[in-house]
Amino acid sequence: MSSLYVPPPKCLEKRFVAPQRHMFGPGPSNVPPRILAAGAEPVIGHMHPEMFEIMSDIRSGIQYAFQTRNKVTLAVSGTGHAAMECAIFNAVEPGEDVLMAVNGIWGERAAEIAERIGARVNTIRTPAGSCFTNEDINQALARHKPCVVLFTHGESSTGVLHPLDGIGDICHRHNCLFVVDCVASMGGAPLYMDTQGIDILYTGSQKVLNAPPGTAPISFSERAWQKVFNRKTKPVSFFLDMSSHNIPGLENSWCRHQEVAEYFHEGLENMGLRLFVKDKNVRLPTVTTIVAPPGYDWKEITSYIMKNHKLEISGGLGPSVGQVLRVGLMGCNSSKASVDMVLEALKDALKHCHKSRV
Amino acid sequence: MSSLYVPPPKCLEKRFVAPQRHMFGPGPSNVPPRILAAGAEPVIGHMHPEMFEIMSDIRSGIQYAFQTRNKVTLAVSGTGHAAMECAIFNAVEPGEDVLMAVNGIWGERAAEIAERIGARVNTIRTPAGSCFTNEDINQALARHKPCVVLFTHGESSTGVLHPLDGIGDICHRHNCLFVVDCVASMGGAPLYMDTQGIDILYTGSQKVLNAPPGTAPISFSERAWQKVFNRKTKPVSFFLDMSSHNIPGLENSWCRHQEVAEYFHEGLENMGLRLFVKDKNVRLPTVTTIVAPPGYDWKEITSYIMKNHKLEISGGLGPSVGQVLRVGLMGCNSSKASVDMVLEALKDALKHCHKSRV
Repeated sequence: MSSLYVPPPKCLEKRFVAPQRHMFGPGPSNVPPRILAAGAEPVIGHMHPEMFEIMSDIRSGIQYAFQTRNKVTLAVSGTGHAAMECAIFNAVEPGEDVLMAVNGIWGERAAEIAERIGARVNTIRTPAGSCFTNEDINQALARHKPCVVLFTHGESSTGVLHPLDGIGDICHRHNCLFVVDCVASMGGAPLYMDTQGIDILYTGSQKVLNAPPGTAPISFSERAWQKVFNRKTKPVSFFLDMSSHNIPGLENSWCRHQEVAEYFHEGLENMGLRLFVKDKNVRLPTVTTIVAPPGYDWKEITSYIMKNHKLEISGGLGPSVGQVLRVGLMGCNSSKASVDMVLEALKDALKHCHKSRV
Repeated sequence: MSSLYVPPPKCLEKRFVAPQRHMFGPGPSNVPPRILAAGAEPVIGHMHPEMFEIMSDIRSGIQYAFQTRNKVTLAVSGTGHAAMECAIFNAVEPGEDVLMAVNGIWGERAAEIAERIGARVNTIRTPAGSCFTNEDINQALARHKPCVVLFTHGESSTGVLHPLDGIGDICHRHNCLFVVDCVASMGGAPLYMDTQGIDILYTGSQKVLNAPPGTAPISFSERAWQKVFNRKTKPVSFFLDMSSHNIPGLENSWCRHQEVAEYFHEGLENMGLRLFVKDKNVRLPTVTTIVAPPGYDWKEITSYIMKNHKLEISGGLGPSVGQVLRVGLMGCNSSKASVDMVLEALKDALKHCHKSRV
């Protein structure tokens, strides 16, 4: 156990404490106690039944805040920058013309992002602190014939709230999607996604919403969704591809995971179950793959255990679908007590689940 | 105030409560109370002095967990998928050859991500539940001559812990970067980034680290960094580009922000300060831009206010750099009491900061 090359840093022993401040800059803003407390609720799995209700509530809340009835409305697991990339990556294909309305840093940023994915980027510019007229916009659309135009509703670098009325109609007459960045304005200034004809709208969580950064609301109109759905090329990012919408004691920790895994594997074999990975030396100590017990429906087993033991284990993934049960025992869950719970739950499930044949 | 098209959903009235579960699937795992409590600490700004210490502590912790002394070690503001894209987007340029070692779903995923950015993707494959030998790897590198090879240390879809010893040396003999995905294994199985010659290593927060998803540790070796630094093309994602390393009452909320902003603007003008946006109708109610007071150093003003009033306001951004002060009053900070605090702080700063000329 003396082979650790980098020793544990002293800072790991500190309790994390952040100071109280009045956050009156352009963001992040203060997170009130109610939202901080929600963040301290337990983490549950992305496939747990409650998660579907949570996702649905998040959608309803964003639909309300954006004033839209769009079905494709969600929070991206990322920052406002990730939402901007999500909008542009999904709406624009390489070689297509886009028009970026630049009256501050966020229009510049959108232009840079579109350039990186190989779009033909056109810009209109106005001096810092001023706005475009609808006639400016109409003329620019007639000249550049873009398939996507992007405006910044709240331009936090200059303090401008850009008027949006009428731009949606102009864009649609020119057969173009109207994309709006409302990171700095949403909730603090009137915005009506549907009635203003906005096709893609996104914001961040750390501004008027007063939540920690890291989730970014976004919504796509039916018109936008048709373009995303009928793309010829895949978006550059898998992570942001909307079409898939259908430390204390490191060595001790390694050792404990290994010991607990071996204890678990022995218990499984004593129950008559078989391990999917035959070679002991290459068994992952954090996730154990068990050959699905012959004669049983593996889904019935995982559902039974969730329902009767409030304990999540799962089926296979990719090449192991239908062939295995997977049990993850990680970090604080890597203990013999946890193993005993899983073994008990499995024994109980094998006794009570339906067995089709011997 | 009767113009709201989408009414507030009932779910906004619910208090958010998540159930307690034993999270024994392949992740997310349980988040222990100490970590949940840290998440409930106040949010502070990304430019506050404490943030530099926090970022430095995070780096030390990751260096320890990864067993590396790499300077370029950080947590990506995103999920494990974002870290995988961060590794591939930065290390690989379009048209370059890469080799993906596929023994489960994560190798497939890495291949798909590299394809999307236009890399020439070569794969080696081994049946689910088994591993590659170092001789397999040596032969594949000789044949495909990739500039990057990616292995999954913990393949959670099959339960395999892939041996890593010796692969780094083989990669470096073939002038190739050795990238490793340790999302499902890090902290639960031995891993020595530097001594094993790993050039890019990344993981997720919701596995052995027992933290909520949304931050992803990643580290780049000097060899990897040289390749990233000397790229000919920009990475497709601005957000993940490492080279830039150096609801209740929506209409009421809109109204309140507007009223508070007007109250603030009046107070500023009464003090003799000027607003950057001359047309009242296009002033962003969430972020106010104030013409930097002539004769003062704006940085001295913001520093003075931070030090003496524990209150953050900031200077300009992009086109407004050096010309303005920016004050954001958003969500719970949008109140006349907050405005009064800012006005007091500004008055105090103008009295005590150095004035170079009249």
